[in-house]
Amino acid sequence: MDDLDARTSELDRAHVFHSWSAQGALSLLPIAGGQGCTVWDHSGRTYLDFSSQLVNVNIGHQHPAVIAGIREQAAVLATIGPATGNLTRAEAAQRIAARAPGGFNKVFFTNGGADANENAIRMARLHTGRDKVVSTYRSYHGNTGGAIVATGDWRRVPNEYSRGHVHIFGPYLYRSEFWATTPEEECERALHHLRRVIQAEGPESVAAILLETIPGTAGIMVPPPGYLSGVREIADQYGVVLILDEVMAGFGRTGEWFAFDAFDVKPDLITFAKGVNSGYVPVGGVVISDEIARTFDDRVFPGGLTYSGHPLAAASIVASIDAMESEGIIAHAKKIGTDVIEPGLRALEADHPVIGEVRGTGVFWALELVADRATREPLPAALMGKAKAELVARGLLPFIADNRIHVVPPCVVTADEVATALTAYDEVLTLLDKEVS
Amino acid sequence: MDDLDARTSELDRAHVFHSWSAQGALSLLPIAGGQGCTVWDHSGRTYLDFSSQLVNVNIGHQHPAVIAGIREQAAVLATIGPATGNLTRAEAAQRIAARAPGGFNKVFFTNGGADANENAIRMARLHTGRDKVVSTYRSYHGNTGGAIVATGDWRRVPNEYSRGHVHIFGPYLYRSEFWATTPEEECERALHHLRRVIQAEGPESVAAILLETIPGTAGIMVPPPGYLSGVREIADQYGVVLILDEVMAGFGRTGEWFAFDAFDVKPDLITFAKGVNSGYVPVGGVVISDEIARTFDDRVFPGGLTYSGHPLAAASIVASIDAMESEGIIAHAKKIGTDVIEPGLRALEADHPVIGEVRGTGVFWALELVADRATREPLPAALMGKAKAELVARGLLPFIADNRIHVVPPCVVTADEVATALTAYDEVLTLLDKEVS
Repeated sequence: MDDLDARTSELDRAHVFHSWSAQGALSLLPIAGGQGCTVWDHSGRTYLDFSSQLVNVNIGHQHPAVIAGIREQAAVLATIGPATGNLTRAEAAQRIAARAPGGFNKVFFTNGGADANENAIRMARLHTGRDKVVSTYRSYHGNTGGAIVATGDWRRVPNEYSRGHVHIFGPYLYRSEFWATTPEEECERALHHLRRVIQAEGPESVAAILLETIPGTAGIMVPPPGYLSGVREIADQYGVVLILDEVMAGFGRTGEWFAFDAFDVKPDLITFAKGVNSGYVPVGGVVISDEIARTFDDRVFPGGLTYSGHPLAAASIVASIDAMESEGIIAHAKKIGTDVIEPGLRALEADHPVIGEVRGTGVFWALELVADRATREPLPAALMGKAKAELVARGLLPFIADNRIHVVPPCVVTADEVATALTAYDEVLTLLDKEVS
Repeated sequence: MDDLDARTSELDRAHVFHSWSAQGALSLLPIAGGQGCTVWDHSGRTYLDFSSQLVNVNIGHQHPAVIAGIREQAAVLATIGPATGNLTRAEAAQRIAARAPGGFNKVFFTNGGADANENAIRMARLHTGRDKVVSTYRSYHGNTGGAIVATGDWRRVPNEYSRGHVHIFGPYLYRSEFWATTPEEECERALHHLRRVIQAEGPESVAAILLETIPGTAGIMVPPPGYLSGVREIADQYGVVLILDEVMAGFGRTGEWFAFDAFDVKPDLITFAKGVNSGYVPVGGVVISDEIARTFDDRVFPGGLTYSGHPLAAASIVASIDAMESEGIIAHAKKIGTDVIEPGLRALEADHPVIGEVRGTGVFWALELVADRATREPLPAALMGKAKAELVARGLLPFIADNRIHVVPPCVVTADEVATALTAYDEVLTLLDKEVS
């Protein structure tokens, strides 16, 4: 089967253009199959997936119930347009709304996280009649920014918001932008900063505050107690819609259905993708509070897409949520995070000076690596590249972002798998310690 | 089974938020299954689908080979991240590149048509170092416009193009913006207009001309001979990238693999979605000319998405292209368009004064309806609503846009099915004739 790996690499280099990369020097692992926390190539070499790919395979690879749900729906009706009723779609929406707080009943389906945020922003702007969106510098909300303004027909006009993005700093005590030294101080000052920016922009111009509940690719910065409830207060004070982006943090990643369930906060709009069906079929969406949904009872919502509420995606959502519920996968993610992952990572922190900070929750952890614990100078990119190569050589697929290793296995990860991964991390951190000492 | 239809409607109204609609008064047909050009509800009532949903089900509903391809891939590996090699993905890219003109080898996969255009625009801007995108007023290129500017991290910075969209008029002789009376005049004047806009904007500021090869939802305006080759000349003269949006027109809709195959033109970037796999799994993408691909050999392409090159989508592309090829579906679409659909629609035009113009090609036709043939006043919206209801009552799912009925069945439509549809159109047009006479 080894020639299939070679064929994959050859065809891939000839014909596939890859995300966020220079294409010339790409050399990517061929992956042919997977199960649970493991993936493999055609020649049978296996890898322990502690990336969950792009932090999306929450239920693990090839969960049998989700695969069965997809195969059954495919046999009946793979696709149908959004201007129809479809039972599988409606059941997926019901499943999602049932996990949201009270007062959330409707779901708008998209193809992924980017267009989920696109449509949440659209709803917030039309609901408030305002334009600006406040979000943080340390954030990622998707890759789209142009198609509706390139569009010429009437659908462009209610969507011609091309300015109006304002960026703030969020709480991040380890690299505080506010000269704070305690979580309480970081929280209070970050809220002050947000309030001052809104005041200075003119509150009557601000439609939405858009935040990842726990910033993900930016570094898994769990907000300090009181921050999100403080943001909620500011949003209420100024009549601003609060959008929580749960694309990466939602559906089990933090050991909760929604990451904000662990905080004293209720948003107005919730965006999701990834974990909702582990990405088995591309899908995302917005869970809409009743108040905002009512805005569009008599007024056309000027947004949409061909694959909104796709039956195959919907079937995978129904099967995934049902399996997460019946198999206790959310609770497992919380427990293994508390009982196994966190203690293991704290032990690494004690042993390895290259670790500057360990932070996270559930199966959503970051090791921030530094060249010097005193100055907190980030570990250089070349050493992060070495870390990645050394982890892959040990059969572990890591998630590397800037100077961090994100420890983000599927929610179904076992204690044995965590132990195997900790051994690999330990060996590679030992190499890195030597490089910086 | 009828209670399942009722349950669908009830759950749908409670939990599903729909595209491009006011939500309060929606009453949508429940659709439970389909085959070929027919779909049905739970109680067994069937509809002949002359919409192809949103003009995407080119291969018809539930094509067995495509369904088998999806089910087989689902059993092996439903999803894998874009930073891997995957054979099914590479084969899908190879299949697509093989249908493109010489000098096109690489494919960037997205989730749909909107983010295909997003990424083509991104490539054009980075390739040229320019900002503006020229497209037509009568166009639709997708619903996204904000996520990357909401994003705060480094991925925002190379994508902060928030201005820079310029709209022009394209050729549309029936409602000429150029006081033209012949196709030759319309073509020449539309090219003059495009050239003058580029000159007036400053050619050194224009990155791309983005055109639907045949504008779709805007009204299926087949460009006059010489227009697209004239656009190509203008693009070359000013060093502008030509992006042809083949999302709706590509993969069989016009009886060609790409709609531009019927014209003397070669673009620099091609965007696709819909027909490439009939939307069985959400997917889209960009086919990239070698010259533009080379720009990103040593330079990071600052765009990407979690589900880029999704294996389940890729499997459906491979199966769909192979079936279209082996079953002669592209040639069938051309032949049934020429031999059956066009003569049928011309006969309706002769009989019904409410038809202002018939235009199209392949299985891609528009009937433009008018209150008055002399003034070309569009048929009012209320009568278009009546047309829709009357067609549905006759068991035909129509595609209605503004004052037009788009006749857009799957490419596999049979002569008998066209005859059935023509009877329904004929009856409803007779009703409309009476309303306006």
